[in-house]
Amino acid sequence: MGKTVRKLEVVSPVPADIDIANSVEPLHISEIAQQLNLSPQHYDLYGKYKAKVLLSVLDELQGSEDGYYVVVGGITPTPLGEGKSTTTVGLCQALGAFLDKKVFTCIRQPSQGPTFGIKGGAAGGGYSQVIPMDEFNLHLTGDIHAITAANNLLAAAIDTRIFHESTQTDKGLFNRLCPPNKEGKRSFSDIMFRRLKKLGISKTRPEELTPQEIKRFARLDIDPNSITWRRVMDINDRFLRKISIGQGPEEKGMVRETGFDISVASEIMAVLALTTSLADMRERLGKMVVGNSKAGDPITADDLGVGGALTVLMKDAINPTLMQTLEGTPVMVHAGPFANIAHGNSSIVADKIALKLVGPGGFVVTEAGFGADIGTEKFMNIKCRYSGLKPQCAVIVATIRALKMHGGGPEVVAGKPLDHAYLTENVSLVEAGCVNLARHISSTKAYGVNVVVAVNKFSTDSEAELNAVRAAALAAGAFDAVICTHHAHGGKGAVDLGIAVQKACESVSQPLKFLYPLDTSIKEKIEAIAKSYGAGGVEYSEQAEKQIEMYTKQGFSNLPICMAKTQYSFSHDASAKGAPSGFILPIRDVRASIGAGFIYPLVGTMSTMPGLPTRPCFYDIDLDTATGRVIGLS
Amino acid sequence: MGKTVRKLEVVSPVPADIDIANSVEPLHISEIAQQLNLSPQHYDLYGKYKAKVLLSVLDELQGSEDGYYVVVGGITPTPLGEGKSTTTVGLCQALGAFLDKKVFTCIRQPSQGPTFGIKGGAAGGGYSQVIPMDEFNLHLTGDIHAITAANNLLAAAIDTRIFHESTQTDKGLFNRLCPPNKEGKRSFSDIMFRRLKKLGISKTRPEELTPQEIKRFARLDIDPNSITWRRVMDINDRFLRKISIGQGPEEKGMVRETGFDISVASEIMAVLALTTSLADMRERLGKMVVGNSKAGDPITADDLGVGGALTVLMKDAINPTLMQTLEGTPVMVHAGPFANIAHGNSSIVADKIALKLVGPGGFVVTEAGFGADIGTEKFMNIKCRYSGLKPQCAVIVATIRALKMHGGGPEVVAGKPLDHAYLTENVSLVEAGCVNLARHISSTKAYGVNVVVAVNKFSTDSEAELNAVRAAALAAGAFDAVICTHHAHGGKGAVDLGIAVQKACESVSQPLKFLYPLDTSIKEKIEAIAKSYGAGGVEYSEQAEKQIEMYTKQGFSNLPICMAKTQYSFSHDASAKGAPSGFILPIRDVRASIGAGFIYPLVGTMSTMPGLPTRPCFYDIDLDTATGRVIGLS
Repeated sequence: MGKTVRKLEVVSPVPADIDIANSVEPLHISEIAQQLNLSPQHYDLYGKYKAKVLLSVLDELQGSEDGYYVVVGGITPTPLGEGKSTTTVGLCQALGAFLDKKVFTCIRQPSQGPTFGIKGGAAGGGYSQVIPMDEFNLHLTGDIHAITAANNLLAAAIDTRIFHESTQTDKGLFNRLCPPNKEGKRSFSDIMFRRLKKLGISKTRPEELTPQEIKRFARLDIDPNSITWRRVMDINDRFLRKISIGQGPEEKGMVRETGFDISVASEIMAVLALTTSLADMRERLGKMVVGNSKAGDPITADDLGVGGALTVLMKDAINPTLMQTLEGTPVMVHAGPFANIAHGNSSIVADKIALKLVGPGGFVVTEAGFGADIGTEKFMNIKCRYSGLKPQCAVIVATIRALKMHGGGPEVVAGKPLDHAYLTENVSLVEAGCVNLARHISSTKAYGVNVVVAVNKFSTDSEAELNAVRAAALAAGAFDAVICTHHAHGGKGAVDLGIAVQKACESVSQPLKFLYPLDTSIKEKIEAIAKSYGAGGVEYSEQAEKQIEMYTKQGFSNLPICMAKTQYSFSHDASAKGAPSGFILPIRDVRASIGAGFIYPLVGTMSTMPGLPTRPCFYDIDLDTATGRVIGLS
Repeated sequence: MGKTVRKLEVVSPVPADIDIANSVEPLHISEIAQQLNLSPQHYDLYGKYKAKVLLSVLDELQGSEDGYYVVVGGITPTPLGEGKSTTTVGLCQALGAFLDKKVFTCIRQPSQGPTFGIKGGAAGGGYSQVIPMDEFNLHLTGDIHAITAANNLLAAAIDTRIFHESTQTDKGLFNRLCPPNKEGKRSFSDIMFRRLKKLGISKTRPEELTPQEIKRFARLDIDPNSITWRRVMDINDRFLRKISIGQGPEEKGMVRETGFDISVASEIMAVLALTTSLADMRERLGKMVVGNSKAGDPITADDLGVGGALTVLMKDAINPTLMQTLEGTPVMVHAGPFANIAHGNSSIVADKIALKLVGPGGFVVTEAGFGADIGTEKFMNIKCRYSGLKPQCAVIVATIRALKMHGGGPEVVAGKPLDHAYLTENVSLVEAGCVNLARHISSTKAYGVNVVVAVNKFSTDSEAELNAVRAAALAAGAFDAVICTHHAHGGKGAVDLGIAVQKACESVSQPLKFLYPLDTSIKEKIEAIAKSYGAGGVEYSEQAEKQIEMYTKQGFSNLPICMAKTQYSFSHDASAKGAPSGFILPIRDVRASIGAGFIYPLVGTMSTMPGLPTRPCFYDIDLDTATGRVIGLS
């Protein structure tokens, strides 16, 4: 992997993220690739500082051994975020640039929603960043755009199919689906054989079908009220949360209520994160269920004839994007965030490629979303289940700020000044808040990994406060708890964390233990997860009961569970800080992501489309047209 | 420019487009770049076969001379298309690979709507194609995705702003727009000074503003009924033509009717086509008008604070994409199609870069959309007006099939077998149809260019039919009329066309004559264009009258005109074939694209969002997951 790491000159106070990012000249990404022993046929360049690593690398390295696998989660965060990406990057800069380890950072592509909305970009921060940060935060290599395009092509196919079925006879529909060629002969396209097979029809020529078979084949008879497939957009557009479509005169009154989600919540994003090969992705995309026929049969993308086209739209997106940290260590960016309303982990293929490339003794540090209750839980029970990989160590990122909030500190609101309590020493608030950290530690340890707590230190934190967290973490069973200053100092500030992570990896011996087995009922699995949140029970809405019954009848009950739940509390109530327990978890609705491979319960009210504030981040963003540089991105 | 052209082995009958495209191993795009004397700092690679040529090339070549400039238009087409892209590519293959000329093909990025909908891809066809055709037809280098993202960020900004204004006092709004920093000081962001300037407020500190100024600055007071900005999607999704948004409970009843257009119809696509530099693009994006305040003042993207962010989203899209033809000649792909509902020409910057790179004696062949009535008209009166460039030659592509239709042949419907009349000799139908060709020739000649007619020959065309077209073309004033077989033979089949184009370029002497001057009224300009269609007069709806009056009052009457009109007739009535005249052209509505720089009248009913048929192209499209190759793309 070579030693061409970049030496950082750090300045105090820490400048703005974009200024730090712009102050460093990145290496040409082919140099990063070369350090990884990748040759030009292993990747496609996207400009000078990004490359897509081709999936074929995985086949070539099939026989070689993996490195250590580290997952980074967090405690329950404030709305400001506690520096999970920053810590992920800082830890890798420490391991690669200071501890002489082969290392790979695996993180998720940011959504443009937050970038232009409230939170800003997601490249890390301070002296622990992925660069160039503007390329990282904007289009990257187009994966989310590909997901948006594929998601919405499928949506258009659903409504148009219902429309055309409503105006045509079975025979007319069939004749249009299987038109005669120049010689007047009709035939099935390849994708139609998937539907024929599903229907148990083994005939191969259109003229052989009986009128009954023609009807079954050609008429999907989708129940408009059953459609769970929504359109998506990678923008915070709250006015699209609930809309009525089909109001044009040509659509003949076929008005339907639906809505848009943010693109990262698309099932196709989850497919991208969980797939393991092109062939696997083709199958997953084809079997995505969009709703039911009026008779209650699930209707898939392949039934609509569009699974192949979706795969074609996603064929480049399956290759993860190679970038670099400020200190020149390699980064793999793949799949998307939002572990509250989605799966929210980086991709299996990126982690797998990275584990082979670092090899034995090397480290792959992969990021899970938000707190351990949702991000790490989904990482273990969904992602590791599908990948077969086992992490040795889980890092939990904590801040004094968030712990004070959990200890009873005043509300923290994005865009408003922090209360005095967060800027001066208050050990007892911190100590009180450690119940949140403790529960994250114990539920993460239960998977059979060693837990290292990383306290992301702010300049206002006092020695006594930091010591309190260390003590509480060790008391709760953490393998170690380390104070980090990577935001201010880059990798140098996370060397102790790097050493602790290395020891944690080397000393683990248990196998991975999942929270629930797959072969129990949907409700039993939901209840196992609810218990890990501290819930005393689960309450299902009528709608949720109906959906669970239906998915069970349809044969989907053996899938893992992906909860859509607020990231701001263990419970469904964002204001319940600390470690609430005994509450009843309300399941409002249950959806199914059959292609991605999970059941998707909605806990309480969860918006799947954020909104813009009065003064969005975009007010500060512009291009310096003389230099071509982006300004104001945070 | 070198001679590394690729020798084609042609097969008869002509195989499927994707099979021809896949049978050729493209050159690495860096080899194409090298032949153009471009070094790696002049471009960014996007994989192995695409590169974005950086705009800085234009600055470097500022002093050097341009080559010849050729625009390709067509006669009024059938719904099947008459091979305009194919002819554009074939002509360049002839000039570059057989006539030893430096040559550049400038074409438009296809929309994914037709690719997955009815028409299929747009890479040309047969042995005259841009390759790799799957990369060309899919995401390319992300320009249309960037346009979609920028367009919809602006849309979200509009509705959210109206929402936030409705719930806040002037003072509250102002305080949120100019929040205090850590030291408690408020300030204006850079973009806010644009609005302050527009309002004639020269104060620089928020605390200096009077309550009246605060109100004027902070409250845009957008009239929801005046909003002309629609959302876009690069998909044929007819159910989004007319929708109601804001139906979610959090949006508090602020429901509004709006709709989606296909992305290529976005004003931002027109800005991309017509801009000349990053700084120019920044200004155009900022001054795009989205609607009016209740007092009737135009509200711009910069008023909403988002012009800078839009520029940042478009900063890579401004660089045209370099690709290659089947015979290894260079291609520039930039901006979008749909000259019926949009401007529909390839970009000014692509043409400018190409003209410098081929240099004196070289040829840049650029494609305009559809028939000369809309594509070439917009090319001359809008694009050339903004670029200052003058074409020497216009090619008009004709087919026997389309001429027969204009002569009274039966209707041609996509997806249905062609009538017998189109497959057997019928000279009199052809002769009768030549009135259409003749009018395209005379209106194109009026710009002061030489017109060469290219008859795109099909295997069913007879010698007598072809001779009839040649004779009619010359009689109508064409410089030459040439039979071409580039679909079947590649560049070799267009050598005669290449020679004719060269002669036409060398012998032109007139200056460019526009159809109308800018400093006349909007109505006078519309009427000049209507006259060129053969119209006897123009009829304005009440809505159109109102808009014209408003735009005139707002000071926008000196812009060129971009008509949205059916491509299937000179008139507004798609069924009026041949050369209709004396009809009254109905102007249903008038919009304004102030950033792009034109007034946009809608002629009759024009859908700005296509639909999917019962059996869309996507039924045939899939990925061979073993090889990673796309199949079924046409």
